[in-house]
Amino acid sequence: MSGDVVIRGIGELVTCDPSAGVAPGIIKRAALVARDGLLTYVGPESAMPPQPGLAELDVRGAAVVPGFVDAHTHALWLGDRAGEYAARAGGETYEAIARAGGGIAATVRATVGATVDELVAVARPRLQRMALDGTTTAEVKSGYGLALEAETRQLQAAVALGQDPGLPAVVPTYLALHAAPRGDRRRYLDAVVEDGLPAAIAAGARFADCFCETGAYTVEECERFLVAARAAGLGLKIHTEQLTRTGGAAMAARVGATSADHLERATDDYLHALAAAGTVGVILPGASLTLGGPPPPGRRLLDCGATVAIATDCNPGTSNTESMPLMISLAVALAGLTPAEAVVAATCGGAAAVGLADRGVLRVGARCDVAVLDSPRWLDVAYHMGGRPVAMTIRAGVALGA
Amino acid sequence: MSGDVVIRGIGELVTCDPSAGVAPGIIKRAALVARDGLLTYVGPESAMPPQPGLAELDVRGAAVVPGFVDAHTHALWLGDRAGEYAARAGGETYEAIARAGGGIAATVRATVGATVDELVAVARPRLQRMALDGTTTAEVKSGYGLALEAETRQLQAAVALGQDPGLPAVVPTYLALHAAPRGDRRRYLDAVVEDGLPAAIAAGARFADCFCETGAYTVEECERFLVAARAAGLGLKIHTEQLTRTGGAAMAARVGATSADHLERATDDYLHALAAAGTVGVILPGASLTLGGPPPPGRRLLDCGATVAIATDCNPGTSNTESMPLMISLAVALAGLTPAEAVVAATCGGAAAVGLADRGVLRVGARCDVAVLDSPRWLDVAYHMGGRPVAMTIRAGVALGA
Repeated sequence: MSGDVVIRGIGELVTCDPSAGVAPGIIKRAALVARDGLLTYVGPESAMPPQPGLAELDVRGAAVVPGFVDAHTHALWLGDRAGEYAARAGGETYEAIARAGGGIAATVRATVGATVDELVAVARPRLQRMALDGTTTAEVKSGYGLALEAETRQLQAAVALGQDPGLPAVVPTYLALHAAPRGDRRRYLDAVVEDGLPAAIAAGARFADCFCETGAYTVEECERFLVAARAAGLGLKIHTEQLTRTGGAAMAARVGATSADHLERATDDYLHALAAAGTVGVILPGASLTLGGPPPPGRRLLDCGATVAIATDCNPGTSNTESMPLMISLAVALAGLTPAEAVVAATCGGAAAVGLADRGVLRVGARCDVAVLDSPRWLDVAYHMGGRPVAMTIRAGVALGA
Repeated sequence: MSGDVVIRGIGELVTCDPSAGVAPGIIKRAALVARDGLLTYVGPESAMPPQPGLAELDVRGAAVVPGFVDAHTHALWLGDRAGEYAARAGGETYEAIARAGGGIAATVRATVGATVDELVAVARPRLQRMALDGTTTAEVKSGYGLALEAETRQLQAAVALGQDPGLPAVVPTYLALHAAPRGDRRRYLDAVVEDGLPAAIAAGARFADCFCETGAYTVEECERFLVAARAAGLGLKIHTEQLTRTGGAAMAARVGATSADHLERATDDYLHALAAAGTVGVILPGASLTLGGPPPPGRRLLDCGATVAIATDCNPGTSNTESMPLMISLAVALAGLTPAEAVVAATCGGAAAVGLADRGVLRVGARCDVAVLDSPRWLDVAYHMGGRPVAMTIRAGVALGA
C-alpha cells in the first residue's frame, strides 16, 4: 500500500483537465504515474519517462476517469424505510408520510441510539459499494441524531470510516438542521449554535448543512445556523428548493455557501445568484427520479454559469443507491447534461462541492484517485446503464478492495 | 450440472404465485427443491420432506425471486452508437438522427455482414451481464439484417447463445420489419412473407415482430406480415405507439398478438383492447428514460386489466442496459407500479410475453429458475438502485457462471 504505481495501457484517459486534451480532457493511449499517492505524470504512454522500480498496473486498454467525488450522502442510518418506499409507490406522498411520523423522523428514531461502532458497521457495506462503483471520496452527513450526542457519534463514525484505507475518503458534514425538532425550535437552534457547532468541529466536521424546506427549517433559521457555522470555520451547505420554493438558494449565495443542493424548484434568478457567488449547484438525480416532480436543474445551472456537481444523495427515503455511474446516466437522461458534462460534474464538480482542489482532476500534483472502467470507452460510464461499470477503483495510488 | 438441488435458508421467497402466500406470493423461511431442473417442492423450509442425496445450497437468509424473463431485447449488434447517444444528450432528436442515416439503419450497416460466430461473440458478454443480474430467459430479436441471409444468421446466433448452459435461455424472434427497406417496400414485404418467414422458422424463430411507427412500417404493412406469420405458426409481437400514435396496438389486439411493446402513446381504448385480447403489454422503462416523452404505461395497463411485462429493450440506440433489477426500479419510479407489481411483471409477466407457462412463477412443476438477491429482503430488488443486486442466478437448478 505504497501509493507508488505506474498505470499503463489506458485506452482513453479522461483527465477533466481542459488543458490536457479534447473536452473533457481526453488523452488516448495514456499512462499515469503516482508517487506517495500523488500524480507525477499524466499523459501519453509513449511520452512517459522511464519509471525504474515502480510497480506497474496494465489496464489493457480500459478507459480511466477520475475517481468519483460523491458530494452529498446520508450513508449513516439504521432501520428500514422499504415499507415507506412501497407506500409511496402505491400513491402516498413524501410529505404525507413525513406528517404521519415517517420520513426523516423515522430514520432518526432508528438511528439516534446507535453507537459509533454500530454506525460504522451499518455504513461500511454502503461505502464498499461506493468504492466498487468508482467513488474515491464521499461526503457523509450526520443528521439522523438531532440530539447533540447522537449527531456527534454520527460525525465520529464518518471520520472512522474515512480512516479505513479500503474505503473512499470521507468528508464529514454536520447536518444539524434536518428533521424538525420535537420541542422548542428556538431553544434547539440555540443549542445547535452554542454547543453543537463546537462539538461537531471537535468530532471532525468540515461542513455545516441544513434542510431549508417547508416542514423542516425556515430560511431565517438556516441563515442563523450557517452564519454561525461560517464564523466557527466550517464550510457551508444547504438542502433547498427541493419540494417547495423557499428562497434558500438565494440565501445560500448571500452567505457564501460552498454548495446548494437539490434546487429542482429554484428560479433562474437563484441559479444566477449561485453562479455569481461561486456556490456549486449539486444535483441529485436519484432523489429526483424517486420523488418525481421537476427534473434536476443540471442544464439550467450550466446555462446560468454555475459549477454543477452530481451526487447520489444515498439515503433510505428518497435515493437508496451508492452508484455514481448510475447518477451520471440519470443526469444525462433527466438533467440535460451531455456525457462529458456529467463526468466532469461527478468528479471535479464534486470536488468543488466539498472544497477539495486536490482531486476530481487528473493532473500532476493531484491525488491518484481513479476509476478503471469495464470498457475501453469512457462514454460507457454514461451510455451503458446498470451492470458493473467499474473494473477497479484506485485511491491515492492503491486499489480499493484489492 | 444435474439440476438436482435443495435451496434452503431462503429468508423471503417471492413465488409470484398468488396462492402461495401474501402478494406477490411471499413465503418466509422457505426452501425449494428441484429435480432435473424442475421444482418438486416450494414452501416453508420447516415443512420440506427429507431430500436424501440431493446437493444443498444454503443461501443464508437471502431473498429469492423467480429468474427474470427479459421479454424484449435486441442483444445482437455490432458497431457503436455512443456518438449518437452523446449527440442526443446535446439536443438532437432520435427522429433527426434516424433521418440522417443514424439510428437503427446505422446498426444495420454495422451488423448486416456479421457471421454467426461474430454475432455470438459480440452478444455473449451482454447475455453474461443479463445472467449476472438475474435473468434466466431472454427474448433476442433479429432485425439488424434486413436482407434475408443476415436476418437468418442473427436468428441462428440467438439459438446458439440459448444452447450455452452458462447463459440465460433464449427465445428467438424474427424482427423482419425494423428499419425501413432501401428499395421497393412492397417487394421487401413480399420477400419477407414468402421467403423470410419459412427461413426464420427453419432457423428456430418462435416469434415474429415488427416496428409499427412513422418512418418505419405502417399498420397495414405490419398487419400483412403478422397475419402471415400467425398462419406460419409463429407467435406475434409488435413495437408500437412509442414515438407516434399509429393504431398499431389496436391492430395487435385484433390479430391476437402475444405482446404489444412500448405503448407510451397508446390510448386507454387501445390498452383495453389489448387486455380483452389477452395481449401482454410490455413496458420498456430504459427506452422511456433515454428518450424522454410520456412515461411507460405500466399503471395504465394494469388499470385497464392487461397483463404487464417489464423488459430491458437492450439495444445500442435507446436502452443500453441488460439489468432487469434496474428496469424494476425504473418501472416503480416512472411507470407507477408498486414493487410487487414490478417484480411480477419482470418474471411471470415476461414469461407470458414470450408464451412460456413453465417459468416466471415458482411452483411445483415449473423450472427452477431463480435469482438469489444480495439482500435478505425482496423489496431491495426495487428499492435499492445500482450496485450488485443479484448474488447468484440459477437456471434449471444450476448456478450460472458458477
